[in-house]
Amino acid sequence: MSAFDPNSLKFNDQGLIPAIAQDATSYEVLMMAWMNAEAVSRTLETGRVTYWSRSRQSFWVKGDTSGHVQDLVSLRVDCDRDCLLMLVHQTGAACHTGRRTCFYTDVTDGSEVELMAPMI
Amino acid sequence: MSAFDPNSLKFNDQGLIPAIAQDATSYEVLMMAWMNAEAVSRTLETGRVTYWSRSRQSFWVKGDTSGHVQDLVSLRVDCDRDCLLMLVHQTGAACHTGRRTCFYTDVTDGSEVELMAPMI
Repeated sequence: MSAFDPNSLKFNDQGLIPAIAQDATSYEVLMMAWMNAEAVSRTLETGRVTYWSRSRQSFWVKGDTSGHVQDLVSLRVDCDRDCLLMLVHQTGAACHTGRRTCFYTDVTDGSEVELMAPMI
Repeated sequence: MSAFDPNSLKFNDQGLIPAIAQDATSYEVLMMAWMNAEAVSRTLETGRVTYWSRSRQSFWVKGDTSGHVQDLVSLRVDCDRDCLLMLVHQTGAACHTGRRTCFYTDVTDGSEVELMAPMI
């Protein structure tokens, strides 16, 4: 075991690292967004998943406006230290369209097929 | 339903999109790597997951040298069209370290803990 330092991660030239959120119960992959080192620290300290919004250029505490929070269960680093995987407890829809997951469009057979409707 | 065109995806300024591979049976998240539009097309056409290697600047048919191939089960696009999720049948280890998944290091409690050993 060694102490974890968020600054030991490999960030891209914008200082960001991709973070995948996976449902800790169903194992469904919910979404992928970006974090900077401070967002990683805040996520670990608060237990509330906090991304960096590239469009708004600000911290984005998931669910702060929608109520669709992500509570961190565990955070993992990949072998290259340039990608994060988080197991989370997701309240409501992870996707801004109201769907449980952002990955609701299947394209395997040459056509785009929506796999689920928005949650009520 | 509408026909899927890989060029309708949103690529970054290097022409790449992140692609997450998830085991279609265990739902374990195995790895994240990058694709360009041609890699997406080849993956769909051949059923063999094909990334774009940023370090080698060439196509990377997963498993071509290691034997640890990824056979595509389904490919999904996220709501923003800037990330892909693939359900795959993974032969052997997904990680170049010989571990089943690249996400074998947990950092939740302030220390880095390896969750698994390399496969034999």
